[in-house]
Amino acid sequence: MAKRRTKAESGEDLLIGRYFKPIARHPGALGLLDDAARLAPPAGHELVLTADAIVGGVHFFHDDPPDAVARKALGVNLSDLAAKGAKPAGFLLTLALPKQCGNAWLERFVRGLGAAAKQSGCPLLGGDTVRTPGPVTISIAAFGTLPKNTMVHRFGARAGDRIVVTGTIGDAALGLKLRTDRGAAKRWQLDAGMRRHLASRYLVPQPRNAVAEAVRRYAHASMDVSDGLAGDLGKLLRASHAGAVIEVAKVPLSKAVRTAVIADPRAIQTVLTGGDDFEVIATVPARALAAFQTMACRTGVPVTEIGRVTAGQGARFVAADGRELRFERASFSHF
Amino acid sequence: MAKRRTKAESGEDLLIGRYFKPIARHPGALGLLDDAARLAPPAGHELVLTADAIVGGVHFFHDDPPDAVARKALGVNLSDLAAKGAKPAGFLLTLALPKQCGNAWLERFVRGLGAAAKQSGCPLLGGDTVRTPGPVTISIAAFGTLPKNTMVHRFGARAGDRIVVTGTIGDAALGLKLRTDRGAAKRWQLDAGMRRHLASRYLVPQPRNAVAEAVRRYAHASMDVSDGLAGDLGKLLRASHAGAVIEVAKVPLSKAVRTAVIADPRAIQTVLTGGDDFEVIATVPARALAAFQTMACRTGVPVTEIGRVTAGQGARFVAADGRELRFERASFSHF
Repeated sequence: MAKRRTKAESGEDLLIGRYFKPIARHPGALGLLDDAARLAPPAGHELVLTADAIVGGVHFFHDDPPDAVARKALGVNLSDLAAKGAKPAGFLLTLALPKQCGNAWLERFVRGLGAAAKQSGCPLLGGDTVRTPGPVTISIAAFGTLPKNTMVHRFGARAGDRIVVTGTIGDAALGLKLRTDRGAAKRWQLDAGMRRHLASRYLVPQPRNAVAEAVRRYAHASMDVSDGLAGDLGKLLRASHAGAVIEVAKVPLSKAVRTAVIADPRAIQTVLTGGDDFEVIATVPARALAAFQTMACRTGVPVTEIGRVTAGQGARFVAADGRELRFERASFSHF
Repeated sequence: MAKRRTKAESGEDLLIGRYFKPIARHPGALGLLDDAARLAPPAGHELVLTADAIVGGVHFFHDDPPDAVARKALGVNLSDLAAKGAKPAGFLLTLALPKQCGNAWLERFVRGLGAAAKQSGCPLLGGDTVRTPGPVTISIAAFGTLPKNTMVHRFGARAGDRIVVTGTIGDAALGLKLRTDRGAAKRWQLDAGMRRHLASRYLVPQPRNAVAEAVRRYAHASMDVSDGLAGDLGKLLRASHAGAVIEVAKVPLSKAVRTAVIADPRAIQTVLTGGDDFEVIATVPARALAAFQTMACRTGVPVTEIGRVTAGQGARFVAADGRELRFERASFSHF
């Protein structure tokens, strides 16, 4: 039921009380009734901080379900925490809302946000809601904790390390393509179930926080794959002053992506350079690979070895026949 | 000089490297080369977290100087930290940029941001830069530290407490009015210096971080005045289940505001209920008032006693002649 607005309470206060307070039950959120939140990392721990924004019409479609938009906004941040080896501790949300996002939109947005927060153990701690004449813009700053000096960086990969990725690569990039290129579904010979799989992987990232502790314990270097496997691996290698060889045949693909690539071999370019995977890529010393895989497996996150770190510069993507793949553009950027 | 874009580096990476990396020298920022930042509060301390966004055409004018926009974006967050008694520790920035904000805009924005960060001891730790088809939208999450369990809340005010505010009230609200109401400057009989003072107080908040330690040591309750003195005091009192009497004649006014109110007595409504003051309002037990004032004075921040907390509900604003002021609208809200 709509609460009546009194002279003493502002519209923003009512909006916060009605929609956001119910999902901000962490004591540090102070019921969203204060100017700031509190967060105390456990003794001997430090914080890992990340922020990502998504914009309507840029990072998602205006007609995407609001609960999926919320899950994406939080998920892209959770993915960074996972790749750094941190345990989620909470987040701040700033939401710039256009008038056309009314109560129905907001209700569904908050439902998705609350569910994602609960599922990931990353509670809403506070934030800000503002009006915008532009598209809905969701900015989240997320915080994780880990024992001091154990954050896993992009730098740190060493020649000989095995390169592993979680889950499957390319689903979201093909899922996006399905929404912008009407011929793609037919060209790729996908059935309805495969199309649904790819679409949902674009719509809602599945951050790999379950694998964070294994990454923290065993990985030399790690990052999340958000702008394309080839480009993001390139960033990790540049930070580490190292090179790599990737066996393209080992890159884990879903049934839908395999089907598409068999029907349309050029699609492999999109698979390896498209964005929005939100998987983790890590380099693990050879001697720790089995332990890493066992620990990851126990959490239910599939991990696959796809290549190894070498001396030198840049990643070589080698096909089963020994030929090296070349990419038009290694990663995605709006700039 | 513009750096040439290579296939291996994305436009966003270049933008970050060119504009933001030079102002992110804190070791926790990791040179903006990782997916996340690190922050370790000192032993026995906890974090205070706040986030606020400002939107072009909503919270500032499109033709405001970009360096002032940056100062405002950080300042509104610093103001929250000050009011909670926290020492600034760093911030994350997400910047949604329209195409029309080109290199010249960005350079000036970053210059202002870097200067404000340095001045306040609140370094840039990380963030995200995205494209938007809407207005420029700047979202900042700022972090402060304080000894565990010493954050000053909105609740906690007790009957008998003295109510103090920093600086002067109403400058920014009249400064905004000057920009939207061409008759105001004449009606208020302001000279050029006064107009400049009010305009600059609207343009760039002066967060009162210098007074944070005094607030933390002595205040029972505190918040920053961002949506109007009357409305924000009302929020503090509701959270504290208390009332208050404010002596309007004691509310600290700049020379410009005094001049305006003498020429146009109705302007006192805007002074006491308009937004963007970014001063601190705190309640201090009577026995600690002198110590609070001494400590604040040493930091160079003027503080003024304007009334006292009472039992009951709501704030009564009493004029010198004993009449009680009534407000059309106690505080500002975009919703």
